[in-house]
Amino acid sequence: MCAKQTERVSVGPISGFPEWTPAERILEQRMLDTIRASFERYGFSPIETPSVERNDVLTAKGGAEAERQIYRLTSLYPQSVEDAREYSLHFDLTVPLARYVAQRYGDLVFPFRRYQIQKVWRGERPQHGRFREFTQCDIDIVGDGELGLMADAEIPAVISEVFSRLDIGNFCIRISNRKILTGYLEHLGYNEVETADILREADKIERQGVGPVREYLEGNGADASKIDGILELVQAEGSSQEILASLKAKTGIGDRYEQGVSELSTVVEFASSFGIPEANLQVDLGIIRGLDYYTGTIYETRLLDHPQLGSICSGGRYDDLASYYVGRTLPGVGISIGLSRLFSQLLRADILQAGAATVAPVLVTTPDESLYRKAIEIASDLRSNDISTEIYFEKARLARQLRYASRKGFKVAVIPLDEDLADGKVRFRDMESGDEQSVLIANLSNEIAKLVK
Amino acid sequence: MCAKQTERVSVGPISGFPEWTPAERILEQRMLDTIRASFERYGFSPIETPSVERNDVLTAKGGAEAERQIYRLTSLYPQSVEDAREYSLHFDLTVPLARYVAQRYGDLVFPFRRYQIQKVWRGERPQHGRFREFTQCDIDIVGDGELGLMADAEIPAVISEVFSRLDIGNFCIRISNRKILTGYLEHLGYNEVETADILREADKIERQGVGPVREYLEGNGADASKIDGILELVQAEGSSQEILASLKAKTGIGDRYEQGVSELSTVVEFASSFGIPEANLQVDLGIIRGLDYYTGTIYETRLLDHPQLGSICSGGRYDDLASYYVGRTLPGVGISIGLSRLFSQLLRADILQAGAATVAPVLVTTPDESLYRKAIEIASDLRSNDISTEIYFEKARLARQLRYASRKGFKVAVIPLDEDLADGKVRFRDMESGDEQSVLIANLSNEIAKLVK
Repeated sequence: MCAKQTERVSVGPISGFPEWTPAERILEQRMLDTIRASFERYGFSPIETPSVERNDVLTAKGGAEAERQIYRLTSLYPQSVEDAREYSLHFDLTVPLARYVAQRYGDLVFPFRRYQIQKVWRGERPQHGRFREFTQCDIDIVGDGELGLMADAEIPAVISEVFSRLDIGNFCIRISNRKILTGYLEHLGYNEVETADILREADKIERQGVGPVREYLEGNGADASKIDGILELVQAEGSSQEILASLKAKTGIGDRYEQGVSELSTVVEFASSFGIPEANLQVDLGIIRGLDYYTGTIYETRLLDHPQLGSICSGGRYDDLASYYVGRTLPGVGISIGLSRLFSQLLRADILQAGAATVAPVLVTTPDESLYRKAIEIASDLRSNDISTEIYFEKARLARQLRYASRKGFKVAVIPLDEDLADGKVRFRDMESGDEQSVLIANLSNEIAKLVK
Repeated sequence: MCAKQTERVSVGPISGFPEWTPAERILEQRMLDTIRASFERYGFSPIETPSVERNDVLTAKGGAEAERQIYRLTSLYPQSVEDAREYSLHFDLTVPLARYVAQRYGDLVFPFRRYQIQKVWRGERPQHGRFREFTQCDIDIVGDGELGLMADAEIPAVISEVFSRLDIGNFCIRISNRKILTGYLEHLGYNEVETADILREADKIERQGVGPVREYLEGNGADASKIDGILELVQAEGSSQEILASLKAKTGIGDRYEQGVSELSTVVEFASSFGIPEANLQVDLGIIRGLDYYTGTIYETRLLDHPQLGSICSGGRYDDLASYYVGRTLPGVGISIGLSRLFSQLLRADILQAGAATVAPVLVTTPDESLYRKAIEIASDLRSNDISTEIYFEKARLARQLRYASRKGFKVAVIPLDEDLADGKVRFRDMESGDEQSVLIANLSNEIAKLVK
């Protein structure tokens, strides 16, 4: 409280580390609650892992771009935190899941279904909508040795539950199966490296058109019919059933292709029996993502009215979650929602608007100090009726207290006045309309419940 | 998926970074939900700040032990995250609150009431119950220029709400006012430094008895009557009203002392009008804490049946939140619950026991693949009736599926069998009693709701 007061420390935002106003945070928290409730409704159990993992755990797989973005911990004052350098902040929730499952393999019950809603950190160059710290919401179903295809069919049902409840507009889950394209390219004679290259170029179609993939294929000596065959597959349009039918019509392409088509058919068929409307689930072989990770089903999700947001929920099936950490084959399927990015985009696109800066609908004002006890009594009654309530206790004229109520966005202001209290009544004001009425104190919580619920 | 598989990375726990099983995490999350709901019921608004602050913000106050424990961020690969070194993980939620309020001073409405439930990090030497990463749950009420005493009276009501709802045993909020002791010591002729020293020794009484403080006072030339006077104050016993009466009976001790006694009386008086039972709030001048921070009211909270846990919720009144960052006087009052520490102690003391490893009460089994559609239909119906439900989709004998249900702690297993379905019925099993019954599918969610709610 002394010397340093004069040299004031500057307090601007830190680039890439989002922070919201109270009103915005209330909205974000509502989204997080909705996502969590949807995950729980489908029986996913919560886990939380530390923010850090050992460096060798984080880098076991190697080669990921995320690895170059890892934030290592050290001590602000050298030597005082001895072993801090051994661990770093996690850059996703998949590595921590893999480590968690490997470490606790013997204690977990499989299939292991978990959700995890946590911060992750990536030292990216901060730019439009890219954060260095952000909240991710993940679910995964992990099998021990094997995991049936129904898990892949259930995931779109969860995605659909989440985005229906979030109520941020029409959405479409795009679904594919990695084996179809790789099987097809294998059939055309491309080796693993070429296949990966082609998929990488095909992944650019949406942003850059077919130019890059066509160029790559031509440079690689492909003739027009090969190129057309590939592009036809990646760009196939029509209903899911139409696309699946035409995929099935191609015969003699090989086991991998056929397995992919069969898996995709089964997944789409069962996904629809979860009640996902046809418009919300679309087969699309043009989605590529997670080349070095996903091995079967792949998902992307978009808001139909806001394609500029890109995929807001993605994931897929993988064969091998944790072989870097444990001698078991643990296949799984999962998705991830990058909530911070989604939330900031929804705000920026005005799809969500921040509202009240309070979660409580009611402010009890205190026009006079002598009314503190009455105010407390009224507030306690409202609270015990599950109506969150704040009391304004500072000495201020009523007009100022009502201005406070209005600025914070309370729905109702209760105004205890001696003249009403003498009749066992109390006045309350609908902050939106400005209407005031007096009711018997015994009826207050009922009357307010009508207004706020 | 290739080369590295053979060199397996070890995956032990990281000392000081707690991680829970799914069943434990479910319990912890329930505690967090309860705390949050209590904070919201009293009209505190949520904020969340980044995990990092600039180094000069974190160290502005200086001298704190926590400062030596700060985790700085750097890059795992030098130079790739350029400016990471400028910021570090926060070590509490008070510095971030101060920075938040300072930065957004013009946009916030005062008194600013916020809650904040977040991870904090301290590079402590990890030992019994001390964590390097832990979740803190804070509330504060911050005034602009001034903040009335009613804020101090409201805080114990929130503490009481939280711990009544957490239902972890009888608790007592101990309350004091810093001005009483400092005023008394000032009256005895001690200067600021001596007063701080005496309070520091008095803070040890609970653990080490009166020896250290008596020794200090004797070494400082105090006569027996001085020493007795101080010890009598610090160790005063009796009801809050009795202690307050005897404090008021001492006259001529000076303004600061009298102000402290008057504030404490007012706070206790109004706190009780919030309905806090007398047994839950106790005046106790023996609580000292936060010497260089708190300036008036001080709170500590203990579980009466588990004194070994120490204070589980502490806080107090401060005059000056953010003068390092903004040219405003921002007095406030707040408390903090160290949730990770509390939770781990409750587990260790067996006050809390981890239960089910699932939040969903119902598992729908699939005795045969042909029943997948029916299982989905049943689960969808239960979910739409707000009953969280998992479907077991792996190929396994029913006995194994029921063992899964039992290991994860489901309350009910639904068993669709052709013989029942033919009659429009379905069987379900109370996993605790083992009782099975068949009901009309249309009645299933009602019947299950009775069992699980």
